[in-house]
Amino acid sequence: MRILISNDDGYLSPGLYLLAESVKDLGEVVIASTEFPRSATGREITFNRPLRFVRKRWLNWHVYVTDGTPIDTLHLVVEILKFRPDLVLSGVNVGDNLSLQHIFYSGTVAIAIEAALMGIPAIAFSSDVESFDDFEQESFKKTCVSIARKIAEYVISRKLPNDVDVLSVNIPVRYRNCIHVAKATKIRWEASYKKGVDPRGRDYYWLAGIRSVAEPGSDVSLFEEGCVTITPLKIDLNVSKETLEKLRDLEEILKTS
Amino acid sequence: MRILISNDDGYLSPGLYLLAESVKDLGEVVIASTEFPRSATGREITFNRPLRFVRKRWLNWHVYVTDGTPIDTLHLVVEILKFRPDLVLSGVNVGDNLSLQHIFYSGTVAIAIEAALMGIPAIAFSSDVESFDDFEQESFKKTCVSIARKIAEYVISRKLPNDVDVLSVNIPVRYRNCIHVAKATKIRWEASYKKGVDPRGRDYYWLAGIRSVAEPGSDVSLFEEGCVTITPLKIDLNVSKETLEKLRDLEEILKTS
Repeated sequence: MRILISNDDGYLSPGLYLLAESVKDLGEVVIASTEFPRSATGREITFNRPLRFVRKRWLNWHVYVTDGTPIDTLHLVVEILKFRPDLVLSGVNVGDNLSLQHIFYSGTVAIAIEAALMGIPAIAFSSDVESFDDFEQESFKKTCVSIARKIAEYVISRKLPNDVDVLSVNIPVRYRNCIHVAKATKIRWEASYKKGVDPRGRDYYWLAGIRSVAEPGSDVSLFEEGCVTITPLKIDLNVSKETLEKLRDLEEILKTS
Repeated sequence: MRILISNDDGYLSPGLYLLAESVKDLGEVVIASTEFPRSATGREITFNRPLRFVRKRWLNWHVYVTDGTPIDTLHLVVEILKFRPDLVLSGVNVGDNLSLQHIFYSGTVAIAIEAALMGIPAIAFSSDVESFDDFEQESFKKTCVSIARKIAEYVISRKLPNDVDVLSVNIPVRYRNCIHVAKATKIRWEASYKKGVDPRGRDYYWLAGIRSVAEPGSDVSLFEEGCVTITPLKIDLNVSKETLEKLRDLEEILKTS
């Protein structure tokens, strides 16, 4: 069992090593990440410049580090280390990734998505911690390690159902001992802007009033109650064959003109 | 009919105005974009600094311009202009967006995804043009305008099927007069790195050998034959209720420990 641990917060994040700790005896474990937090560039791949990829030591672990993006990290591990993982664990991310809106933005989930497209099962872990310091709380550490281990064991021993590619797990800092498999709500927040005038007299708009509109029973509402949420994802945006056929008339309309 | 035209290449891209041209008489049209190309930050939203949002004139069109990201643009249009579109057109992007791998990366599709999450139908247009100059070819311009118009008319008059949220359209520069509704292939390329040593004696890795592994009949293979491809997408990564239930035993396993 070859397990890759990665994240989008960079190799300095203690969240990475909580995952490593949780599965260290379950197989051959490689840890690899980026030099710096790269949440903003989760899905990018670097074509137009060379990349570094070196082994470092951090928090008593060996870790491979690139100056590229999280997706570069995954490809470098497979191609340069010749380590094709059987399982990818991503996180634990600083910041939760609840709702489809966040899942589509998330670099942490992006690694899992890329792994899934390569046919590798993946689990993304996120939490509402606000900084690396927050990972220092002993009880929270224990929760993360224990939950990550059990989910990894489950995926290894039972395999994911056929139409599940990724599990996105969110662990609340204020964990109240409840765990739910839950679907991702669609929208987490709606935009609202505060208008202002800068010292030089020009208008500006500052995003405010981000409000949650959680569906009951969804990941967002369960997480807000203090529960760990496990959201299974299928990494396919294609529609069914039947639906595809319904749009065939579009071909005719476009051709005959 | 309120139509928003946007992109992730910035307001200077002629691709934006091809879409505007194609639908200008179909309803109330607003054009809005970013100051600069923001492909890399397609999915980001700006929380921690104020944004500008001003009206400019470019290529004889009025266009709203922000110093934020493509997703910021969409939210600014809705919240500041109080213009909630009935339809969003995104593109025409410099660079095609074929395969799920590209679709997940693409800023152009990200705008359409965000619109879809807000309940607004959206069409993303991309092409294998390599720079803004390539938009100047008269026959290519005509193709873009004509295809965008007909697809927009179709979506307006017939509505998209229930389980389609986004159409991702790819228009080849060497268009051979064929049009296909096609699913997105999973993977477009596989990584391969060229190792080198820099002038200071340190190793580097440069991404090379990007090779296409197109499924026959998929978007990639049809596009490579010179066809316009129309790929319907459902913006939902959630699995079915039945599959969700299959994972319920995970709750018990995690609780009893």
